[in-house]
Order: sequence, then structure tokens, then C-alpha cells
Amino acid sequence: MPANWMTTLDTPFLLIEKSKYLRNIERLYSRIHALGSVVRPHLKTLRSIEAASYLLAQGDSPSTVSTLAEAEAFAAAGYTNLLYAVGIAPHKLARVAALMAKGVNLHILLDSEPQADAIAAFGKEHGLKFSVFIEVDCDGHRGGLPPHSDELLTLARLIEASGSTLTGLLAHAGESYSCRTDEAILAAARAECAAIKTAGDRLRAHGYACPILSVGATPTAHFADDLSGITEVRAGVFTTFDLVMKNVGVCRLEDIAISIVTTVIGHNKEKGWVFIDAGWMALSRDRGTAGQSQDYGYGLVCSLSGDHYENLLVTTTNQEHGIIALPPNAAFTVENFPVGSRVRILPNHACATAAMHLQYQVLSDDGQGHEVWQRIVGW
Amino acid sequence: MPANWMTTLDTPFLLIEKSKYLRNIERLYSRIHALGSVVRPHLKTLRSIEAASYLLAQGDSPSTVSTLAEAEAFAAAGYTNLLYAVGIAPHKLARVAALMAKGVNLHILLDSEPQADAIAAFGKEHGLKFSVFIEVDCDGHRGGLPPHSDELLTLARLIEASGSTLTGLLAHAGESYSCRTDEAILAAARAECAAIKTAGDRLRAHGYACPILSVGATPTAHFADDLSGITEVRAGVFTTFDLVMKNVGVCRLEDIAISIVTTVIGHNKEKGWVFIDAGWMALSRDRGTAGQSQDYGYGLVCSLSGDHYENLLVTTTNQEHGIIALPPNAAFTVENFPVGSRVRILPNHACATAAMHLQYQVLSDDGQGHEVWQRIVGW
Repeated sequence: MPANWMTTLDTPFLLIEKSKYLRNIERLYSRIHALGSVVRPHLKTLRSIEAASYLLAQGDSPSTVSTLAEAEAFAAAGYTNLLYAVGIAPHKLARVAALMAKGVNLHILLDSEPQADAIAAFGKEHGLKFSVFIEVDCDGHRGGLPPHSDELLTLARLIEASGSTLTGLLAHAGESYSCRTDEAILAAARAECAAIKTAGDRLRAHGYACPILSVGATPTAHFADDLSGITEVRAGVFTTFDLVMKNVGVCRLEDIAISIVTTVIGHNKEKGWVFIDAGWMALSRDRGTAGQSQDYGYGLVCSLSGDHYENLLVTTTNQEHGIIALPPNAAFTVENFPVGSRVRILPNHACATAAMHLQYQVLSDDGQGHEVWQRIVGW
Repeated sequence: MPANWMTTLDTPFLLIEKSKYLRNIERLYSRIHALGSVVRPHLKTLRSIEAASYLLAQGDSPSTVSTLAEAEAFAAAGYTNLLYAVGIAPHKLARVAALMAKGVNLHILLDSEPQADAIAAFGKEHGLKFSVFIEVDCDGHRGGLPPHSDELLTLARLIEASGSTLTGLLAHAGESYSCRTDEAILAAARAECAAIKTAGDRLRAHGYACPILSVGATPTAHFADDLSGITEVRAGVFTTFDLVMKNVGVCRLEDIAISIVTTVIGHNKEKGWVFIDAGWMALSRDRGTAGQSQDYGYGLVCSLSGDHYENLLVTTTNQEHGIIALPPNAAFTVENFPVGSRVRILPNHACATAAMHLQYQVLSDDGQGHEVWQRIVGW
């Protein structure tokens, strides 16, 4: 039976099942601890102080953010060990400096000489020394320097010559989201570790301490089998999972802790369409499962209690309308979804769906209680 | 030259060029007035009191909203003639009633007997009479009743028997967004008008006054050639336009009043990639041009002054990263986009991109000044 409040709160709303959320965290944390490393969770998925409290045991527990708005909000909440894991834009250094002045250990990321020059110039002008990570490319996915590149050593020299500290290296196996087998994810995890260790070994051979080697993506974090020498592992979407991660093979449908609760607002009986009040404003435009083994449209339909219907998808969305097109030979008709009844939609991509909401309605781990978590917004 | 504030405000941010915004409004309003009808603008694109002030001359000017959150915010700002153009969910009637109690003329929409029964029951219990529109299906796009259906008359009877008023009919040529020629849009516009007039004639022949016939979609509103008998025309995205509308043929690139200002944060020289700090969080996941004549990826790149680069697109997005992949044989290299420089991105779909932002930075119509418009959020 769904909690009473889930039947009365206005729709659409984003639901977090706390019992699953906590279970997902315990699963990854115990796995990474058993391999001798620690998790530096990426807080970008839910961007929520309340959500982060279950990820960060202490104020100085390591964490990762994707915007300075997050850094400022988590710092205000007492978290002081924050890695801003997007390449630094020079004009953002003033906000970084303001957080450092408050005692926050805010690590910044770069992979180019103009960025290293910018922090040197800013640091000189303001008498500041930054804590810097260099991004290492492990799979050609996005940014970062190849581990064997000369530029890696050049950047290390520029950073430390300017008085800042080369705190660590960061690698992100972004291509692992496209893996189709467990073996491929394991290979991606090994390659991610190998790349960063190669880069770290080179820097250390040249006399740079570079104490932190930071790897991670949710798929590789769940498949890595050897983290020796790896200081920390980053992952974000693992707390809630989603249909993309289910397709990648990192979780089961029943592990997905995030869904959208929506109300049926109409039918087209002839076409077998059910209209719901969750369009792309509530679900997001993310179609991350489109190129995967199973395409879930704009999401998989579940009962309000959370049991999923086989092959029942949100097939189309407009801004505030979703259309659930019943599949041919379905075991049910539109009458199974009367006007005013409620269903839940498992999303393709938790980060994108959460981004459409200012707050999350949380089903307490007793399965009845109601909490509300706020989202940090903006940049 | 871009305004000075556009070079210093932190990125990414959403920019509205007010001169284009006002020109787009004038274009549609004068066109619809010349055809003898009026515009009931759909406020869902920007969801902003400040933006609406240029669309609504008076407090009782007709307008359209997509959520009750919008209705409540626009009502609080003094706007009293609001059509909530999403099929009513029975549980939402209490919020509708609360607005009616404040003197707001809030019209609701339905297309089914369970909805008509729900308003009858709620109205009886609370001594309330609603102002109701019935949705008419003109193109099989989404909801609504066929104009010749018996159910149309049944619903009219149920509405008026319960003491509520059948204020009007609503049709929306949603399929017109998929048109590929001007002739096809004109045909869609004529079909939209024909469907609603057929339905209106039938109701009036049965004694229902049904005073309002409301049609509209941005493409059909710009191509309709005969609005005789059509009380009002709804359109939303026409104020800003976007790349989808450019592809449909309703506007030119230089009419698009909305863009995202972003900073270059890195390069992959070998691959010809430029990294920017606008990912899908700033641009949205909308890929509305993917199936159109010209696929713009995640958006078309322009200089900060607004001049677009031929074929230069945001080709990939992550949450806070965008990648501009230079096309083969491009007339420029990544060095043309140094770290720290700024570009603007024209979005695929204005409604979806605006939804990612809490406020809009507005370039005054003098081309220099700076205004900030707030977005209404939530449901």
C-alpha cells in the first residue's frame, strides 16, 4: 500500500524511496572500502544538503560538485572538502577565492596552460595558493590530458611554480556509460585506473607529490576489481540509479530509488493512449535509453506502490502532458488507468529528471513517513 | 559590441534580446488583429510576470497557462483571465476553487465524462460553478474529442446540467510542429479552424451558447488566413522562437530572441573540440531538431554579439559540459575560441531551455541595458 501522503500530494512530484537510496549507498561504499579506497561522492545528481547527509559522515568528508552554486551551498552547510570537477573558467576564480577565504578546501580542475596561467596570475594578484587537480584522459570521452603527454609535466610545473599545489589527478571513464557487457565495464575500470596511475607515476618520478589519484564513474565504480594506489573513487548517480544504469547492467529495476508520481488526466480509447500530468517538465527531455539495449521511451510505468508494468512506457511527452501508449496485445486497457488515478514513472536519467524539480518528496525508510529534501539550484 | 554586463556576469546564463522579443510579439499580434481575432498568449514558455507584461495589456487580457503554479502566480500579479490548458485532474479542483474565490476567471479544460462528473460533484459539494472549455481534436495529435462525436454533446449537457458554464472549445494543431512546408502549415491552420467551427456549430445548434472558439499553435497562428468565427488564437513560443521554429519555417535565425551565454573552458586540439560551461543543465536535453530538415545538435553557436557561425554546433552535452566539435574543413580552429572567451548558443526548443533557468538576463531594447526577469517554478 502506498503511503497516504503519496495519494494526496499534488502531482507531478519527484519521489525518493529512502530505503533504496540508503541501500544503494551502502552497496557502493562497502564495496569501495573493501577494495581499500574511499568514495568521494559526486553530489550533482540530487544537489541536496539533506541527501548529502547520508553520503558525507563528517564536515571534511571528500565530495565532488559540478557547479560553484553547489560548492557555496554545501560549504554553507559545513562541508569543507569539495572538488569542483568541471574545468575552471578564469572568471570563476573570484568565487573560488571567496570560498577559500571562508576556510573551504575547494579543489579546482584544469587541463590546459591558459588555465594554469590564469590561476598563477590570479594567485599572484591576490596572494592565493590554489589546490589543483589535473584532468587525465583515460578513454577519449571528453577533456583531460593523455597520461603520457608532455603537457602533463608542463602543467604540474606551472602550477607548483606559481605557489599553488598539485593536489591530485582526476580521471573519469565517461565512455563506460556506453558499455554493453560486464566485461567491457571491468575493462573500462581497469583502463581508468591504469591511465591515472601511469600519469601519477610520471609526476612522482619528476618529484611532484600529487597525493590524490581520483577515478570514477558509476559503472566503473561498481566493477573495479583492484583499487591499489587509487586514493578515491567518484560516483554520482549510484544513489538513485535509473533506467540508463539498469541497461548498463549496474543495477536492477527494483534498485531505482527515484520516480515521478503522476495523475491520469485523460484517454484516447481508440488509440489506447493514457494521458498523464507528467510531461517533459517533470520527466526531463532525456532519452538516454534510446540507444541502449532496451529503449524505455520517456520512462517505465509503475503502480503507485512501485511495481512496474511490463513494457508500459511513457512514449511521448509535451511540456505538461505525457502519453502512455498501451502496447499491442497488452494485458490491460485504458480503463485500468481511470482519470484521477496515479502511477509512477521510472526515469531514464536521474540527474536530468531531478534537475526539473526544486524539491524531492521522500518516502521514509519505514515506508510511510514523508520528508522533503530541497535542491540547490543555479550556477 | 556586446553589452559590458554580458562579458562579466557569471556563466552560463540565459539571455533574452528584448528588441527581438518585442518585435516577435508585434508581428503576431498585428497579424491576428488584422484577421479580426485576438491572441490569448500561452505563458508557458518563459513563465514570467515581467515577460507577460509585454503580452497582456490589461489585468483581464486573456492568457493561457500550463500549470496551476503559473495560474496562482499570474493571478497574484493581477491577471484574472486565465485558461489552464491541460486536462483537469479532479484533485486539482480545490486549487482552482481557491483562485476563483479570489475573483480570478480561471477556465478549466476537459474532454471526458469522468472529468465532467468530477466538476459536477465538486461544484455541488462546494456550491461552485466552473467556467469550462472542452478540448476538440483537430489532428489526432494528443487529446480532445472529434468534432462530430456524440460525446461532445454529452459533455456539454453534463457541464451545463451541473450549473457550470461551457465557456468555449479549444483546439491545438500540435501536428503542425511536424510540417515541412508552408502549404502544410496553412492546411493545418485551416483544419484547426474547421474542426473547432464544426464542433461549435453543432453545440450551438443544440442550444449551447459556447461563446469562445480558441485555436492555436505557433505555426498555425503565423499561417492562418481566415479567422472568421474564431474568437481567439493561442501561441506560446512565438515570443522568443527557437531552432525548431526556424526549421518549421515560422521564423528566421535572426528572429530568435533567446540564447545561452557560455564560457570556453578547454579544448581537445587533436579532435577539434571546444569545451564550454553550458551542458544540458543550461541548454536542456531537448533534441527537437533531430528529426527536422536541419539537425542543430544541442544548439547553434554564435559570437557573443549574436552572429551565428555556419554549421558550428554544440554536438554533445554532459551535465555541465558542452562540446562544440569543429566541422571538417571549418574556416577556424580551436584557437579561435580561447579559454575564457564567450559564445552564445541558440537553443533547439525555447520552452525546454527556459525551463532550466530560474531567471533570465535581458538585454534592453537599447542594446546595452540589463534587466532580470524571474521564472515561475513548480506545479
